[in-house]
Amino acid sequence: MELQFLGTGAGVPSKERNVTSIALNLLDELGVYWLFDCGESTQHQILRTPVKLSKTNKIFITHLHGDHIYGLPGLLSSRSYQGGVTPLTVYGPAGIAVFIRQALAISGSHLNYDLCIEEITSEGILVEEQGFVVEARRLEHRGECFGYRITEPDQTGTLLVDKLQHEGIKPGPIYSQIKQGGAVELPDGRTIQGEDYVGKSIPGRVVAIMGDTKPCQAAIELARDAHVLVHEATFASSHHEHANDFGHSTSAQAAQIAETANVRTLIVTHISSRYQGEDVDVLLSEAQAIHKDTYAAADFWTFRL
Amino acid sequence: MELQFLGTGAGVPSKERNVTSIALNLLDELGVYWLFDCGESTQHQILRTPVKLSKTNKIFITHLHGDHIYGLPGLLSSRSYQGGVTPLTVYGPAGIAVFIRQALAISGSHLNYDLCIEEITSEGILVEEQGFVVEARRLEHRGECFGYRITEPDQTGTLLVDKLQHEGIKPGPIYSQIKQGGAVELPDGRTIQGEDYVGKSIPGRVVAIMGDTKPCQAAIELARDAHVLVHEATFASSHHEHANDFGHSTSAQAAQIAETANVRTLIVTHISSRYQGEDVDVLLSEAQAIHKDTYAAADFWTFRL
Repeated sequence: MELQFLGTGAGVPSKERNVTSIALNLLDELGVYWLFDCGESTQHQILRTPVKLSKTNKIFITHLHGDHIYGLPGLLSSRSYQGGVTPLTVYGPAGIAVFIRQALAISGSHLNYDLCIEEITSEGILVEEQGFVVEARRLEHRGECFGYRITEPDQTGTLLVDKLQHEGIKPGPIYSQIKQGGAVELPDGRTIQGEDYVGKSIPGRVVAIMGDTKPCQAAIELARDAHVLVHEATFASSHHEHANDFGHSTSAQAAQIAETANVRTLIVTHISSRYQGEDVDVLLSEAQAIHKDTYAAADFWTFRL
Repeated sequence: MELQFLGTGAGVPSKERNVTSIALNLLDELGVYWLFDCGESTQHQILRTPVKLSKTNKIFITHLHGDHIYGLPGLLSSRSYQGGVTPLTVYGPAGIAVFIRQALAISGSHLNYDLCIEEITSEGILVEEQGFVVEARRLEHRGECFGYRITEPDQTGTLLVDKLQHEGIKPGPIYSQIKQGGAVELPDGRTIQGEDYVGKSIPGRVVAIMGDTKPCQAAIELARDAHVLVHEATFASSHHEHANDFGHSTSAQAAQIAETANVRTLIVTHISSRYQGEDVDVLLSEAQAIHKDTYAAADFWTFRL
């Protein structure tokens, strides 16, 4: 599981940062990529990464502002041109379907795959797939905006080899049978319960990806105990009133959310184009003063969980 | 007058070429830029050129395919964000208004300038401004597609200094008065007609910019005696049937149009992403064999008239 940042800027593209998009690499887990937001030129950014459009099967849109959706018509069309034939689903606020369908229709774009568009009408669980769960909640921005919590299924615990050997059960194909749980008949005639020889299950990883928002309770709930929280940090603390007036957060506020929610790693993104080059160090240090394990995302940067 | 190529690819972006857009630099003549087509990421390309969105006041769209229009909503929004306050007009086929208005409305984008959208309903003169004339004609593509002919006003001829001096009229501020034409009273009491002392007017430059098309009569008429013809050349001759079936041209066909129309310089663009790097030499040499004065456009390349 790896986060691939495609665009980490806010509002308008700059030479340094494109507008918002993040790919979640689930190749090892589900054989696919999921995309979160799709600002203009996301498909161009993808050309410079290992991400494959044909293997991207879900796109989650946080809200309808242009810097989060204007790349959709082109990306969806190019996916078809590049040979994508498997179905793709776009999730997002009401309005996303009209935007996509109309752009594709007016431009005469034909897709060689099934495009499903699911407008989110209520908070809660949005996707359950092979044990993966995606939950959506409303954040506090201008207009409807969602945050997403992605939870990996728990993994089976490790086999308690010491205990098995202590009881005279020797290694062999029987070990993998035991690990699967349930009643297992041993070569010596004994019957044991597999789960008695398996350690505690390993909790699945949790990634929370927020859309644009000022600090809010829903963000804390989505981020609770997450391994990684990706939170917007459009401004530094010096602009916190301006930030909140426009439904945005400072990096310090993002860090406070991470602390309150007991998040392990915070990644701040959606950084205003007024912060170029080393200016971003201010945002980062203000966040790290509150939540030490914090990174500032950059275009093409990846984070492996 | 300078052509600034922003995107010279066809259909989908590649690492080498973005989808279509051309800026016509009229800073010296009218103090503005005009844009022809606006594929996705045109605003990103502009960031790497001297072109200023705030000084761009007209956008001519050839047709509604995604690779020619998907950059419009973002570019129009960013123009406002970057301080553009003067009016801007978009010209294009029917449907362009709904596409733009709906994208801006759904994304809650507010523009701080007047946006006028003129859908082209008939061929002929579209714009007359300070002597500049833009004429549109229908080409032969899939769906309605226009080509444009931009004609600069004729320039006043040079002052016939030898003739003036031969008649004893000495240099001074009176020379500029004479150049303006009309009756001019000389210091010695004589009255002359200014135009009798001015050479032939210099014909204005003509640039013809085609949208996607297979070879057609309208392209020849738009390009007649032009200083520069910008024509699509999606494919090499080996794919001419495929090209024409899809409403496109080969570079050789573009060159034939240039020859027939007595064009000075041909610039081929809208090159399929199947031609990368040196592959483009084939397209160029096939065109040059027919029309010697031919260039293959590249992203960020400029041509000064």
